[in-house]
Amino acid sequence: MPAPVPETLPPMPGQRLARGVARALRQFDFVSVEELVPTPGLRVDLMALGPKGQVWIIECKSSRTDYLTDRKWQGYLEWCDRFFWAVDGDFPTDLLPEGTGLILADAYDAEILRMGPDTPLPAARRKVMVQKFARHAAMRLQGYRDPGVAGLVDF
Amino acid sequence: MPAPVPETLPPMPGQRLARGVARALRQFDFVSVEELVPTPGLRVDLMALGPKGQVWIIECKSSRTDYLTDRKWQGYLEWCDRFFWAVDGDFPTDLLPEGTGLILADAYDAEILRMGPDTPLPAARRKVMVQKFARHAAMRLQGYRDPGVAGLVDF
Repeated sequence: MPAPVPETLPPMPGQRLARGVARALRQFDFVSVEELVPTPGLRVDLMALGPKGQVWIIECKSSRTDYLTDRKWQGYLEWCDRFFWAVDGDFPTDLLPEGTGLILADAYDAEILRMGPDTPLPAARRKVMVQKFARHAAMRLQGYRDPGVAGLVDF
Repeated sequence: MPAPVPETLPPMPGQRLARGVARALRQFDFVSVEELVPTPGLRVDLMALGPKGQVWIIECKSSRTDYLTDRKWQGYLEWCDRFFWAVDGDFPTDLLPEGTGLILADAYDAEILRMGPDTPLPAARRKVMVQKFARHAAMRLQGYRDPGVAGLVDF
């Protein structure tokens, strides 16, 4: 048994959902990053990359209001193979549009309830997205590994 | 001015060189990860990914002995567009083979002294390497962002 790690929950409800989804996706060999910008003006809560290069986008909605004030989600569809909402057990899922994936999540774990359609990205866009993912992950990682870099370059 | 970040030098001389190289490469819009495994049995000190998908491998050598005991470096050439050695100012660079790149580094910065040849990867291998880079970076990043994940999945 590894020693228990002190638990620090992310402060925002949406971030807690994202953490649980990111943990659960690792069971399917998907890795993920938070707050990736596929194109200026859009920022996804979680982008996941599968073992065969699959690109999934997961938007985390902590409440009815959080969902109803989101006017950008349809813009995400063209940047992924599959799109999911992640919500907690109290969320009124009847609100969510048909033809989208659904993940039930908390800060610790998550379960895919509905896959939604698979709309494969064109090869050129997949290549761009995998590279954006790689660059985003590496820059954030460097910020943790070498905190001093933050004063030297723009993140 | 950002507040100064407490400085923690990596413990090993090679890791200190890698940190300086990683910092310097950001000036050229290259991001990087440490200790990536391109194929079982090989582990590169630093793999860098450029803005156009360029793949560079940098092996950090802290001493003559460190270099002379490396029997694997030629195996790295087929996994990158460019290969570099990174050494400090005391290293006897005459030892290094022709036709390889050379970076002068310390823990804080680095300078490319010699580019070495550009031998572009086949497209299929580049795709594999960018995806390996992405997965490696995201897994390490998740370990920092969510330390509790370490007890749940294998890294």
